[in-house]
Amino acid sequence: MSERILGVLGGMGPLASAQFMLRLTLLTPAQRDQDHIPAVLWSDPRIPDRTAGRLGKGPDPLPWLLRGIHGLLEAGCGAIAIPCNTAHGWFGPMAEAAGVPILHIVDAAAADLQRMGITGGTIGLMGTAATLEMRLYQDRLETQGWHCIEPDPDQMQRLVTPAIASVKANRVAEAYHPLAEVVNSLAARGADAVVLGCTEIPLAIQSGPASELAVPVVDTIDALARSAIAWARGQ
Amino acid sequence: MSERILGVLGGMGPLASAQFMLRLTLLTPAQRDQDHIPAVLWSDPRIPDRTAGRLGKGPDPLPWLLRGIHGLLEAGCGAIAIPCNTAHGWFGPMAEAAGVPILHIVDAAAADLQRMGITGGTIGLMGTAATLEMRLYQDRLETQGWHCIEPDPDQMQRLVTPAIASVKANRVAEAYHPLAEVVNSLAARGADAVVLGCTEIPLAIQSGPASELAVPVVDTIDALARSAIAWARGQ
Repeated sequence: MSERILGVLGGMGPLASAQFMLRLTLLTPAQRDQDHIPAVLWSDPRIPDRTAGRLGKGPDPLPWLLRGIHGLLEAGCGAIAIPCNTAHGWFGPMAEAAGVPILHIVDAAAADLQRMGITGGTIGLMGTAATLEMRLYQDRLETQGWHCIEPDPDQMQRLVTPAIASVKANRVAEAYHPLAEVVNSLAARGADAVVLGCTEIPLAIQSGPASELAVPVVDTIDALARSAIAWARGQ
Repeated sequence: MSERILGVLGGMGPLASAQFMLRLTLLTPAQRDQDHIPAVLWSDPRIPDRTAGRLGKGPDPLPWLLRGIHGLLEAGCGAIAIPCNTAHGWFGPMAEAAGVPILHIVDAAAADLQRMGITGGTIGLMGTAATLEMRLYQDRLETQGWHCIEPDPDQMQRLVTPAIASVKANRVAEAYHPLAEVVNSLAARGADAVVLGCTEIPLAIQSGPASELAVPVVDTIDALARSAIAWARGQ
């Protein structure tokens, strides 16, 4: 029985954090309830939009993020997972306020690439405009030997950004085709794998056929769940 | 934007409470993150088994349930949903300790029967041995004009109880056939609908074909999610 309680700062979006809880459960080896990982999910969809905040077009989400972290600490959580890539733009101040480990989603994605046997080469990177602009992935992955390529600005505006908004509005299936088109375009430009670096993207990609994708994808929800399970088991 | 924060006392089992969060999100009319319902999920799979506790074969879960309720109140929750039917055997002391509404899962199931146009007649009732023995459903439904029938003891021991344990061990798909057999047996005995009165049961039933079920079923995860959405919207 795990004595470690996982904190999950979620609601960004709420479907992604619910899916994180589902995958955390299904990826945990368990025979009965008591073998699973105790967790508290703070699902606060009122947190101001991270992309708008970062691009100077909306209020700062940091006070809301810190409020969630405070709530998770009050509940006794020993580590925090945040199933929202863009929120990692505020990783520094959150980690400082938390005083317990925050499991970084980019490190989780890198571990998943290694697990898949993709130890170098070119990686396609999909995410919100803010995640790409902040270079959340590029800087961490490039020092570890991967080369990152991104969708072009037209693809971001026409395909990726509207598809992310569709998932947040519960219109998941219609987001598959635009996102699959971008995966395959990155593959055509030389990507050996594509990191789905916004937690709305894997929800949409899973709603359609995997067989239409030209290269393997890293599901950052699953990657973060694996990282959380490793923490809970003391690994 | 909802100012009401929903508390979810979960982990019983963890897959059912993750599914509750997913369905709460998908059933909420929303165009963006900020339209969704703020919620805190206290997922504590360490809570002692409710069936064993009720049948005198294991420790009392009540102190653990109250600890979760306390945590949800500390987080500012204004109502509590508990996606575990058997835990409602301790509804009285939990409601007294909470001081905020606990949304009763049997009332949610009754509302769902009404929504489906099933306003009387015979209802098949599936659940844990403890839920059936405590008459959690029978007493509340029979005063509202429904007549309840239950699986026989052999079906409980051979089909229902092992299937619930399978779901808690993440073996969801293999639980479909035994549970569908019981649904259809209750239908053959005259049930107009079957209430899936243990939150593990709808997880399994959804993993197989709905077309093999002879009568409509009430998914108590969805029913409780609808009840929570109504509360959050002030209805």
